Amino acid sequence: MSKVRIGIIGVGTMGSAHAVYLQANEIKGAELTAVLEIQEEKKDWIKENLNGVILFTDEESFFQSDEIDAVLIATPHYDHPRLAIKAFKYGKHVLCEKPAGVYTKQVREMNEAAKENDLVFSMMYNQRTNPLYAKLRDLIQSGELGEIKRINWIITNWYRSQSYYDSGGWRATWEGEGGGVLINQCPHQLDLWQWLTGMMPTRVRAFCYFGKHRNIEVEDDVTAFAEYENGATGVFITSTGEAPGTNRLEISGDRGKIVVEDGKMTFWRNRISEPEFNKQYKGGFGSPECWKCEIPIQGEETGHKGITQNFVDAILTGTSLLAPGTEGINGLLLSNAMQLSTWRDDWVNFPLDEELYFQELQDRIQNSTVKKENKSITLNVQGTH
Amino acid sequence: MSKVRIGIIGVGTMGSAHAVYLQANEIKGAELTAVLEIQEEKKDWIKENLNGVILFTDEESFFQSDEIDAVLIATPHYDHPRLAIKAFKYGKHVLCEKPAGVYTKQVREMNEAAKENDLVFSMMYNQRTNPLYAKLRDLIQSGELGEIKRINWIITNWYRSQSYYDSGGWRATWEGEGGGVLINQCPHQLDLWQWLTGMMPTRVRAFCYFGKHRNIEVEDDVTAFAEYENGATGVFITSTGEAPGTNRLEISGDRGKIVVEDGKMTFWRNRISEPEFNKQYKGGFGSPECWKCEIPIQGEETGHKGITQNFVDAILTGTSLLAPGTEGINGLLLSNAMQLSTWRDDWVNFPLDEELYFQELQDRIQNSTVKKENKSITLNVQGTH
Repeated sequence: MSKVRIGIIGVGTMGSAHAVYLQANEIKGAELTAVLEIQEEKKDWIKENLNGVILFTDEESFFQSDEIDAVLIATPHYDHPRLAIKAFKYGKHVLCEKPAGVYTKQVREMNEAAKENDLVFSMMYNQRTNPLYAKLRDLIQSGELGEIKRINWIITNWYRSQSYYDSGGWRATWEGEGGGVLINQCPHQLDLWQWLTGMMPTRVRAFCYFGKHRNIEVEDDVTAFAEYENGATGVFITSTGEAPGTNRLEISGDRGKIVVEDGKMTFWRNRISEPEFNKQYKGGFGSPECWKCEIPIQGEETGHKGITQNFVDAILTGTSLLAPGTEGINGLLLSNAMQLSTWRDDWVNFPLDEELYFQELQDRIQNSTVKKENKSITLNVQGTH
Repeated sequence: MSKVRIGIIGVGTMGSAHAVYLQANEIKGAELTAVLEIQEEKKDWIKENLNGVILFTDEESFFQSDEIDAVLIATPHYDHPRLAIKAFKYGKHVLCEKPAGVYTKQVREMNEAAKENDLVFSMMYNQRTNPLYAKLRDLIQSGELGEIKRINWIITNWYRSQSYYDSGGWRATWEGEGGGVLINQCPHQLDLWQWLTGMMPTRVRAFCYFGKHRNIEVEDDVTAFAEYENGATGVFITSTGEAPGTNRLEISGDRGKIVVEDGKMTFWRNRISEPEFNKQYKGGFGSPECWKCEIPIQGEETGHKGITQNFVDAILTGTSLLAPGTEGINGLLLSNAMQLSTWRDDWVNFPLDEELYFQELQDRIQNSTVKKENKSITLNVQGTH
């Protein structure tokens, strides 16, 4: 294969953004050959902007087409696993938008299907291309920060107005999205939370608020507390109702503390590790000698295009994936656990009771009183992540 | 009265620091006339440094002395309420070191005793003299920040080595202190947490770890979550086991966000309030226009001396107290609630069940296995708060 022929499923807010750079030939070795879009009102935009690209309105025909080697799934979340499983069945490589799905039971099936073939399967975790986080992962995984003690992420810069929520019938409903800020805005941070440290919690106690800031039924404000096997703890705070928000990640370890904020990384590094200092020190109020280090960040954030290029390279040349598709379940486990902890008003232990989560979600879908008009507006995503 | 004659009770780590500036006549209108100290090994220091000051070793004689108008209580925490109540009985004004006591049941009795006379009663909340916090309180109370949405305090810069804990027999035991980082290091921040906003939570869910970082029986690591009547939430994170720690206070409101860190205050101020923006805005991803404002901080932090001067001025001229003694109970209610929530592994609602807290604390005192040598070392407090 010298060129990967890509078909995009869903030309909404994200799908259209992917279509534009693919159509402009900004991904080496890739060609946008088809889109699958069932909504009538998207047709004009597609005709105008995707000259030469086949528009499918029927799912079967799309998957049966031999003009497509790989699919990019950019539909509402619930359909991600089903479409990925179908794509594998038809021998197509899969690049899936975040989140991997809505409930992990379904995502586990997708991961099983992925294992049964040697097709390339990637998640659109474009924040993994951010050199800040790549560097942070490097400092943690190489042991520079030592044993992790605490992870604090305040990620409240997801301001969304009521008009945003009113822009799509599926938005912010149990039936349409299966959640709010955790499932729509935070999948990147929830992925990074575990990818950076390589640690998943042993249990979570979370406090989600549903429709606190906006007239929606899903969570728009979350504080979650996590415990890890090594004794570390973590706090994850997010909201769509605060302006201006904050994006500040602080990770403490034996060797010091790293803070990522405003696109910069600062490492307060202990000259000797804290446990070593504690062992040696015989005085009253002393603490380890500490150096404030500005960490150089090299490389550029290649974002969505970077992940798509990596996916195409993996198909053509066997390059390692930056965001293997099967890792999509981890961030979703965190999200599911945070909602479940709130619903049960209790701790949620890992491994997560996926059946219980699924049942609780079904209850909320069935008891939903939201009657939204099924209108759909494609939003300009400039400035979002 | 032209001069307030002060007697200090307890010449340990803090008491000796107060004695030094009083003896140097750094408080206008005050004179250090007496100290009460029962420990033999403090005698030499007192003789050497407090020339002309009467040393009492018997509590009754101290209180009966007519050389004392006011007492400064700087003993281990448990004795604060008992000694304050006794001082009121003997007609002495009271300046009490933090915390107000160990359990609120006892502090409530102290507050009752204070109300029955018109003696001056102040808490040593020296952080209230910090112009940063005075300014922050002003911005909140005057409505500049609008309705409060969230309060996040990461106050982990309380690093304490094992040798610190080993320096006093009463330190970090249920019997000696009744707690750890909440009762010893954090009373100022717990006081400010409610003083700045004027809000106490409706309920608290906290995660304390006991002897996690050090060989002690009390809490040395805490994450607490709080809910407020107006819908606001708060997170309070503290630890004595991290190096270097953080002291970052972030408060979000309708009109923006204020961050206090590194001795600076930044106010991200929305041009129009967030709820107003939300009402008017009809687009997708917009948010209120926001101005980053550096807030000028004027005045100096007068610290312990500032509070002692304010106490003396209140006695001599009726000046208003910056830290009225009866307010000492508020921070302690937060601390007690955080421990109780952990012990019960559940929410703790306000008003606090003070009897239940007291019983739970007694259980821990009775079941303590700590056998510390009763050694006592006076530590140099330079650099502490």
